[in-house]
Amino acid sequence: MRLPEAWIISVGNELLNGRITNTNLTWLAKRLTVMGYLVRGAITVRDECEDISWAFRTALSKGASLILSTGGLGPTFDDKTSECLSKALGREWVVNEEALKMVEEKYRRAGLPMTEHRVKMARMPEKAEPIPNRVGTAPGILVREGQSLIVVMPGVPAEMKAIFEEVEPLLRERAPRLEMVSVDVIIKGVPESSLAPVIERAMKSANVYVKSHPSGREVEEPVIRLNVVASAPTREEAVEEVKKALKVIYEHMPPGGRVEGEEW
Amino acid sequence: MRLPEAWIISVGNELLNGRITNTNLTWLAKRLTVMGYLVRGAITVRDECEDISWAFRTALSKGASLILSTGGLGPTFDDKTSECLSKALGREWVVNEEALKMVEEKYRRAGLPMTEHRVKMARMPEKAEPIPNRVGTAPGILVREGQSLIVVMPGVPAEMKAIFEEVEPLLRERAPRLEMVSVDVIIKGVPESSLAPVIERAMKSANVYVKSHPSGREVEEPVIRLNVVASAPTREEAVEEVKKALKVIYEHMPPGGRVEGEEW
Repeated sequence: MRLPEAWIISVGNELLNGRITNTNLTWLAKRLTVMGYLVRGAITVRDECEDISWAFRTALSKGASLILSTGGLGPTFDDKTSECLSKALGREWVVNEEALKMVEEKYRRAGLPMTEHRVKMARMPEKAEPIPNRVGTAPGILVREGQSLIVVMPGVPAEMKAIFEEVEPLLRERAPRLEMVSVDVIIKGVPESSLAPVIERAMKSANVYVKSHPSGREVEEPVIRLNVVASAPTREEAVEEVKKALKVIYEHMPPGGRVEGEEW
Repeated sequence: MRLPEAWIISVGNELLNGRITNTNLTWLAKRLTVMGYLVRGAITVRDECEDISWAFRTALSKGASLILSTGGLGPTFDDKTSECLSKALGREWVVNEEALKMVEEKYRRAGLPMTEHRVKMARMPEKAEPIPNRVGTAPGILVREGQSLIVVMPGVPAEMKAIFEEVEPLLRERAPRLEMVSVDVIIKGVPESSLAPVIERAMKSANVYVKSHPSGREVEEPVIRLNVVASAPTREEAVEEVKKALKVIYEHMPPGGRVEGEEW
């Protein structure tokens, strides 16, 4: 079964100079995966218009069904995502009236006037739809471009999550209904290189993906965490595939290998 | 001053399904930035040959001076980075004799024979140089392609760091000698949108980059962490530029704004 593919674009110098770890990517990737998307790739770029536009054009050219971006959506000069997305799409960058009302409302309550930098947060590519931001000020941006859906979110994690949840029902509609089962098996006493042919055999015997994560020392004290994942229309079918794979792994365990536990 | 540009490629399904946060990227980005590189972009791809090759070709086509990759360097079927880098370069994927000795030595000590999956860890693009792996088994890979230097490392953080440190002197030779000074200023009581014009003014007045990181609520209880960074041939010159920028920010602080601390 071919899953709809998603790309995630992260914008911000702080992600590329090591000041901040991109936990937004982890969070989004997990949510999309569980929902039934295949996250095909992620691109991180600096706060440079040329690079931001390139990232969106690249994801579009890959035929992404869904493109999510985080970062570069605030009032300062280096918040450029909205403008550079407009350039990437060849659309005008305009004040969106609905977004302007959202932004005005936030500042009116605090008795603050609108300024050029505040109006900027209401500027979006033509024909975009603003997404309400319950937590912060800048609205998110939803754009439909051909078969692709683009969702632009701020980089502040609480705001990113709030905006993601606004569009979650829409993303869910566009994803297949799949149940995913993921099991970790901890194996000690056998090097990953000895387990490698067993993993290949398990993947041929069942409709699963098996990935090994070594955490000890390959030769001296090997510890492998095997992650076995299956997706199917029902949970029962997915569990069945995982069990089939585990049976193959246990039956062909190389000498010295012992299973220290299964985490379902 | 134009800095040499680096791209970082991260390979692994686990990074795109939300199982693992990419802390390797943070670590490498910080090391490279401090060394005098501009990390221009980062690409994360799945364990798919087509995608891995595409990532390397993309970084090469961007004229990267340095390309670092992590992940996909072990013995299992889905460790494909070496093979797919070969494809991207149009080079044969061959057993490197020096690498083979390194791998054989590791297993010989443990009394384990060489197998097809163990020999695989010694396969590299033609004319590559193996990088010793003090921590794990698979050697790193160093490739020179035109003006670009490519360094391929495993995804296990301890192994990645060990291999990075082997090539660090070489990377340092290729970077300019620059001192970087980074100062954080915590500002409360003023929304980011009010601070935005002040930041622009500071950046025009001094040779710095100022980035604001909002952490409170823009309207109700704004807290901004302003990161002011300067790079110069000497530390004194960099400090001078930062001080010039701070002076502008303090002199033009919008009403209500107060500095809660400087972190040098």
